[in-house]
Amino acid sequence: MTQQPTALPKPKLGEPYLLTPGPLTTSIDVKEAMLRDWGSWDGDFKAMTAELRKGLISLLGDGSEAYDCVPIQGSGTFAVEAMLGSFTPKTKKTLILSNGAYGKRAVETMAYLGRPVEVLDKGDYLPPRGPEVAALLKADPEISHVLIVHCETSSGILNPLQEISDAVAAADRTLLIDSMSAFGSIPVEPSKLQFAAMVSSANKCIEGVPGFGFVIAHRAELEAAKGNSHSISLDVHAQWAHMEKSGQWRFTPPTHVVAAFLEALRAHKAEGGVAARGARYRTNRDAMVSGMRALGFETLLDAEWLSPIIVTFFCPADPAFSFPRFYELMKARGFILYPGKLTVVDSFRVGCIGQMDEHVMRGVTAAASDVLKEMGVESAAPPAEALAERAKLAA
Amino acid sequence: MTQQPTALPKPKLGEPYLLTPGPLTTSIDVKEAMLRDWGSWDGDFKAMTAELRKGLISLLGDGSEAYDCVPIQGSGTFAVEAMLGSFTPKTKKTLILSNGAYGKRAVETMAYLGRPVEVLDKGDYLPPRGPEVAALLKADPEISHVLIVHCETSSGILNPLQEISDAVAAADRTLLIDSMSAFGSIPVEPSKLQFAAMVSSANKCIEGVPGFGFVIAHRAELEAAKGNSHSISLDVHAQWAHMEKSGQWRFTPPTHVVAAFLEALRAHKAEGGVAARGARYRTNRDAMVSGMRALGFETLLDAEWLSPIIVTFFCPADPAFSFPRFYELMKARGFILYPGKLTVVDSFRVGCIGQMDEHVMRGVTAAASDVLKEMGVESAAPPAEALAERAKLAA
Ligand SMILES: Cc1ncc(COP(=O)(O)O)c(C=O)c1O
Ligand SMILES: Cc1ncc(COP(=O)(O)O)c(C=O)c1O
Repeated sequence: MTQQPTALPKPKLGEPYLLTPGPLTTSIDVKEAMLRDWGSWDGDFKAMTAELRKGLISLLGDGSEAYDCVPIQGSGTFAVEAMLGSFTPKTKKTLILSNGAYGKRAVETMAYLGRPVEVLDKGDYLPPRGPEVAALLKADPEISHVLIVHCETSSGILNPLQEISDAVAAADRTLLIDSMSAFGSIPVEPSKLQFAAMVSSANKCIEGVPGFGFVIAHRAELEAAKGNSHSISLDVHAQWAHMEKSGQWRFTPPTHVVAAFLEALRAHKAEGGVAARGARYRTNRDAMVSGMRALGFETLLDAEWLSPIIVTFFCPADPAFSFPRFYELMKARGFILYPGKLTVVDSFRVGCIGQMDEHVMRGVTAAASDVLKEMGVESAAPPAEALAERAKLAA
Repeated sequence: MTQQPTALPKPKLGEPYLLTPGPLTTSIDVKEAMLRDWGSWDGDFKAMTAELRKGLISLLGDGSEAYDCVPIQGSGTFAVEAMLGSFTPKTKKTLILSNGAYGKRAVETMAYLGRPVEVLDKGDYLPPRGPEVAALLKADPEISHVLIVHCETSSGILNPLQEISDAVAAADRTLLIDSMSAFGSIPVEPSKLQFAAMVSSANKCIEGVPGFGFVIAHRAELEAAKGNSHSISLDVHAQWAHMEKSGQWRFTPPTHVVAAFLEALRAHKAEGGVAARGARYRTNRDAMVSGMRALGFETLLDAEWLSPIIVTFFCPADPAFSFPRFYELMKARGFILYPGKLTVVDSFRVGCIGQMDEHVMRGVTAAASDVLKEMGVESAAPPAEALAERAKLAA
């Protein structure tokens, strides 16, 4: 293993780094916070719930007073479904800006709910732009809500949230944000953005362990959501009202995961909050991308659109390359990669989030270099059709 | 603290025992299993998911081959909602046998789903009986499904599952079981019971930490459930089909909670499985109930209906008694109790499940004795109306 010395504590011996967009590598402190049991009804745990909600709200910065935080048990998808079921109308339309797997999943979620949608489908990775959204909203007064995926984790594109927020606000419609993989490292600030609600989850940029998501919503929206949900478990209003009244979660909370998350929130603050977390991830990304490029790998996206969360690389054209083998050999060196989610060309992804720094990222590219040699891959350059595909983005 | 020596390892210094029906006191081994991170897409974690499903199915005993296990992220309520949304019909009626908070919650869940129900409402704690269910089914051919709560945790009553299963089978209807707080300590065996699906969760009698529930369903029902769910997150068929195909959870699993659960399953097996777990809990209950009775406390239920899961006691009539104070003083002695959920008379509950044995339970009653003295309660006898209420059960 060619790993460089690192400033962050390493995982335990034999435990690989997770170069994945969550579950990710968490600190040992975060995991050790799970070494006790809490009664979910007890005052000690209620205080933990209050700390969690307050800590998350504070990440919004100025203007946060108008918002409240409602944790929802389950994975991030549960929180997205909870947000859509609680805040989208049953008769008016919701416009979904889709450019990848998570946009598609939101469309599918609305189909389960039987609620009307309009979809701006940008394919695998092209960003939705302000002017086209403005035009769609102008053309269709039936659209009342818009959903944007902040970082579309399937390609790693960082969608232009400010531009979309401006267009939606100008048209006097309501914005919902899936900021699952971005929140905590990229600002989501009511002083700049106008949004009704956003979601994220425990095991992304706050670096907790998986087990719950959370909705951060404007209080007026929370009030108005009463009776709108299709699901007792995913009713954001009901969870909120219950928490406000009793300090408790409506149904059994994942107590240990919550304890781990509080530790993660403390570390997030100690590191310097959203700005510092984002800076570390950008440094991670830059170290990793430049190392991979030096090996001949090419990114799907132009620099402008590369998120500091996760980066998609084309698989090399060289017939000696096979992703499953690359995956196993990288894993043997202590790095777990992530497969691609593109439909058109073969790709894989490397995450930049979690308890990792640039030293670890250089370890990743050094390992990739070794592995390519072991596989007998002479060039990591992608096939011509991959580059043709990418040219579309520039057009 | 007057705790006796115990055979099971104690919680860490200062950590109270949770006399609650989950989250409960788990072993340190279970918690230590959470001290690493897993990639949810990786082969290692897929093997863990397979082990979890297989381990749970094996608890059914003979006839288990016809069933499969589908874990569902979230709390137990999520799994109940997933079962109801996936297996109950949209036009035919579901009969809900309700005798407490969890029966009521099932009725509310069906209201969210907009699916037709019939409710046999037995109040706070009277058991539904076979003959009355048979009569209801005979009278209403529109009822296709029946939901029974196995142990109604709000009163602690162990409902007569065999009797209900027989009545439902004789009428050729489909049985769904909420065995949340019973599964793992009380047999649920297809060789004796006829049921389409049942649910339980990680943090009950298997003694894991909270973060997911699971549906165990007949394979034919799983096949037939395609397209029936109201929710993408809670679609049991889709989760099952995805797991069968890929070995993965459809959406991010609570990896650490799963790891803890595998450790809990191993300990469950090592203890001797369902029979031994049930025997320990019955011993816990008997030690605790006899100790409490010796202090003058009275149980809500007659011995016949007392589950080995949790027991409801009437609050003493003595004006020196206040439950909040009793709770705090018991907590100071290392025992977290559970408030009551009855509507008619004041009560509290003491759980018998988790990493506790009869020595711990004797510690509970010794502490209760101390606390009553400290509070100046002379008699723990309940008020007359409580006993009148209880007389109804015998009638
Ligand atoms: C943008 C986005 N939305 C939704 C999800 C779904 O979250 P989960 O996998 O926790 O259900 C993810 C997961 O990575 C995501 O990145
Ligand atoms: C019988 C029964 N059903 C459902 C539930 C709900 O489970 P949860 O609190 O995990 O949502 C419980 C919880 O104790 C229960 O005992």
